[in-house]
Amino acid sequence: MRAYLDNAATTKVDEQVIGKMLLFFRDDYGNASSLHSLGSQAKTAIEDARKIIAESLNARPEEIVFTSGGTESNNWAIKGAAFATDKKHIITTRIEHDCVLNACKWLEGRGYKVSYLDVDDKGLVDIEKLKNEITDDTFLVSVIHGNNEIGVLQDLAEIGKICREHDVLFHSDACQSYMKSDIDVERDNVDMLTINAHKIYGPKGVGALYVRKGVKIEPILHGGGQERGSRSGTENVPGIAGFGKAVEIFSDDEAARIRKLRDYFVGRVENEIKNVRLNGPRDKRLYNNASLSFLGIEG
Amino acid sequence: MRAYLDNAATTKVDEQVIGKMLLFFRDDYGNASSLHSLGSQAKTAIEDARKIIAESLNARPEEIVFTSGGTESNNWAIKGAAFATDKKHIITTRIEHDCVLNACKWLEGRGYKVSYLDVDDKGLVDIEKLKNEITDDTFLVSVIHGNNEIGVLQDLAEIGKICREHDVLFHSDACQSYMKSDIDVERDNVDMLTINAHKIYGPKGVGALYVRKGVKIEPILHGGGQERGSRSGTENVPGIAGFGKAVEIFSDDEAARIRKLRDYFVGRVENEIKNVRLNGPRDKRLYNNASLSFLGIEG
Repeated sequence: MRAYLDNAATTKVDEQVIGKMLLFFRDDYGNASSLHSLGSQAKTAIEDARKIIAESLNARPEEIVFTSGGTESNNWAIKGAAFATDKKHIITTRIEHDCVLNACKWLEGRGYKVSYLDVDDKGLVDIEKLKNEITDDTFLVSVIHGNNEIGVLQDLAEIGKICREHDVLFHSDACQSYMKSDIDVERDNVDMLTINAHKIYGPKGVGALYVRKGVKIEPILHGGGQERGSRSGTENVPGIAGFGKAVEIFSDDEAARIRKLRDYFVGRVENEIKNVRLNGPRDKRLYNNASLSFLGIEG
Repeated sequence: MRAYLDNAATTKVDEQVIGKMLLFFRDDYGNASSLHSLGSQAKTAIEDARKIIAESLNARPEEIVFTSGGTESNNWAIKGAAFATDKKHIITTRIEHDCVLNACKWLEGRGYKVSYLDVDDKGLVDIEKLKNEITDDTFLVSVIHGNNEIGVLQDLAEIGKICREHDVLFHSDACQSYMKSDIDVERDNVDMLTINAHKIYGPKGVGALYVRKGVKIEPILHGGGQERGSRSGTENVPGIAGFGKAVEIFSDDEAARIRKLRDYFVGRVENEIKNVRLNGPRDKRLYNNASLSFLGIEG
């Protein structure tokens, strides 16, 4: 028997998701931009997935734009916002995924200024520090929701409130936390949110960016005008339909089961091994994450 | 019975390709960047596909970079080349796919100059005109190989020779022609070539850019450093493995069968309907394309 403990990197695709995708590989294989009937079935499948995903975030369907995954969504949110304004300052944190950090770094090479916020000993962003960093030149705050290593969850609503007060766009990378924590783009004042499918038993190669209605960012993939002109490219119909299915069937019971297993595992390790420390907070963390330091032991 | 005649827009996924993808959806679902055994199986699958595709173009495996499809590859080739140089002039044609045209248009809004070459009455680029457009400020020539509407095939070797003589990068969008015509990146002096899977019975959402060794372009998707740092994002392992399979099993017999059917169709139409004209040349065209004008009839 094999125990796969790397579900933070990627998950196995659920059989129901595979079944949904097979429909579009085999039968309804049209191009969603074609006008004939196979094209229109593909289009319906995409719109169904869009509705399911929008609902999961309390967003409107037209605010969900499909992409090739989290990396594209993060690059698009950051560069797309940068290309759409004359302002030059971005605020992010030191605990972002590489795609956020490297997109920012690339912009630094092209005349932009980026502030990288430290986090406290629980891994949380200091809200006062964030407030102090915002200037008239700041157009974007990008903060990861659930960190992929230590599992800490930032308080989106608190950050969103400050961004709104200062009229700065707020983007969050929620690849690790999507469906595994409560996200409400209205309540949390999020303007852009990155999500993907392969961390929640959906396929690799598909993700989305939530873009609040009225928020103007430049496309990074120009072309045939798919996704209302904001993200071109022949739609990955099976992938998108599979993403929708993965969200539709995501089970809170399964989440509770994993949380219990995680807590059991962490409890046993803490009881039975000396000099072990849980990284990050006990409460504000991803239910499927266990990050432990064994003091005195390297890497 | 249904006759699907829109294979230029997208094709049905081959059962052998589906079988290959299912392996990676179901069993070998690791993240290719993970160090454990599932990760390494995923990595092997990607490298196998890379070899198959490289061979089909007479390229080296390390010159093939996987992307989310033709639109990303074209955007990357054009913007990536633009961001990597101080030169400001691009030459392309009026018969490109929208993703090339709109990527160029976007660059025009950011200080670049683009020349759009007309084509002759057969749809072919005039090589003398191309030569005359090249200046010291030109860094890129981008010419579509097989046009998706009238089906004409440009002479890559002739264009490549001129670009090489003038030390200008040569990119070609070969989404329509890949596997359906003879492409040899060495013989043809192509520096970058866009290909994708869903036009050759492979999955949507996966493509590649051939980038000649030594050619320096900037990434457009920054992040975790996948694809040797040139295209980040968790690899779409099933899609890539499926792409490789589609190329591996692509059948020249099937191509000959389709060419014969197309010629039969065009022949009958020309014989039996008055005032009909074949658009584009009879010889230099995609074997699966029939573009006809019915004189005196609108759209």
